[in-house]
Amino acid sequence: MTRIRLRIDLAYDGAPFAGFARQPDQTTVQGTLEGALQRLVGQDVAATGAGRTDRGVHARAQVVHVDLDVASATPEPADHVDRAERALADLDVLRDRLDQLVGPAITIWQVSSASQAFDARFSAVARTYRYRLVDAPAADPILRHDRWHVGQALDVDAMQQAGQALVGELDFASFCRKAPGKHTVRRIERVAVSRPSRGRVDIRIDGTSFCHQQVRSITGCLVEVGRGRRSSSWVGQVLEARDRSVAAAVAPPHGLTLERVSYGRWWPASPPESALG
Amino acid sequence: MTRIRLRIDLAYDGAPFAGFARQPDQTTVQGTLEGALQRLVGQDVAATGAGRTDRGVHARAQVVHVDLDVASATPEPADHVDRAERALADLDVLRDRLDQLVGPAITIWQVSSASQAFDARFSAVARTYRYRLVDAPAADPILRHDRWHVGQALDVDAMQQAGQALVGELDFASFCRKAPGKHTVRRIERVAVSRPSRGRVDIRIDGTSFCHQQVRSITGCLVEVGRGRRSSSWVGQVLEARDRSVAAAVAPPHGLTLERVSYGRWWPASPPESALG
Repeated sequence: MTRIRLRIDLAYDGAPFAGFARQPDQTTVQGTLEGALQRLVGQDVAATGAGRTDRGVHARAQVVHVDLDVASATPEPADHVDRAERALADLDVLRDRLDQLVGPAITIWQVSSASQAFDARFSAVARTYRYRLVDAPAADPILRHDRWHVGQALDVDAMQQAGQALVGELDFASFCRKAPGKHTVRRIERVAVSRPSRGRVDIRIDGTSFCHQQVRSITGCLVEVGRGRRSSSWVGQVLEARDRSVAAAVAPPHGLTLERVSYGRWWPASPPESALG
Repeated sequence: MTRIRLRIDLAYDGAPFAGFARQPDQTTVQGTLEGALQRLVGQDVAATGAGRTDRGVHARAQVVHVDLDVASATPEPADHVDRAERALADLDVLRDRLDQLVGPAITIWQVSSASQAFDARFSAVARTYRYRLVDAPAADPILRHDRWHVGQALDVDAMQQAGQALVGELDFASFCRKAPGKHTVRRIERVAVSRPSRGRVDIRIDGTSFCHQQVRSITGCLVEVGRGRRSSSWVGQVLEARDRSVAAAVAPPHGLTLERVSYGRWWPASPPESALG
């Protein structure tokens, strides 16, 4: 008996899920994925994800790894091992079947085999989040599912300037939901605020890893600056305070998308841009 | 007492509605809009729409007109007239309040005054629909609300060629859901099939007016051609048959959006492109 590790690249619309992480009696991305895999391979499966997105947060390129038991040189493999081997015979077919089972709110981009050294969570060297804002007076209702309608013109330059105070290895205690016993130092590589078209503002944040609600909290603060209620330098002051009570309210979850998880050149590549529709 | 006509430009996500047209005990766009207007102006309102979109079909630029009673030189206006006059004092404020009331699935772009000669339905000289398709093997689940995942590579050139048989003033009996006593001759100005990016195909159809399910039926046929199941010339044969049973199944509603209604130069302009986010 031996174990094989699979890497699964997937995307999801966060709306119908109580977040990524499995929870009893709730529909979650992890629970849905594990349940579908169990049906296909006939054994218990525990999925490890690169980022535990919150209820309502989307992911365009989440990465997960799972381990399955397969036969090595066993003359009579157990049934659960046999089923797993058949499921693994063609990973493209496994992708198709898994994609069918997890339903329209989750898409399986790719299933690939990975070495035991690959860990979806701890091997990740960078994560990219994008928060989408609409600052026109009226917002397109057809495209409202992944953006927050702020409804007031935002000052992109002021937001961009404010965001630069957050670049570096810093204590983000002011922006992290408290988790007892866990430190709040994180490394942000880049904060880029841009206007992709009239009436829209995007905030892209790249970092090695993020604490709970960090991106939504940063977004809430940057929007305060964009509205003109706070100066650009205020965000740096919030950081220095190391006190969550001085930060703005966190931005709503549906504007946030985990866009990319990077593992460096030696790991299997992310799905091609073309797959992103 | 006199009547004033309003033009209302609006958009909606079709998903939560049983179509545009008011129906008893169903949530419809027309019913929601009329109910909100009645709350604001204190009198019964009947809305006339440019296009009666089906259950699940979206509109980015639907146009509606309504008539309201207002005082002319009445010394003591009735209460319902007084309320309407106050609501009409500032049409931008009316837009804001109406937009708030109709909820996130409907957006009111603009409220403007129109002459009695303006009729949202009968003054319209052209309507533009767009049907969005995804032909990549896997579709982005975050953007699935307004496109149909065909899941098989489509031949855009063949679809474009097939669509040209439908341009002109023609009998679309093969593509219309039967409506007893109504003729099925319509004028299509343009059918344009394009690939805006890898994995995506858009069908744009411009016409003076459309019969029930016409665009979805045409889309269903063009997709058959795109998949290679039918030749390009088949669509013209379907047209000539004047028999709905020879056409393909209609495409699902959620891929279809009413994108524009044109009234010619003499009517108030559509909302600016910038408003479309």
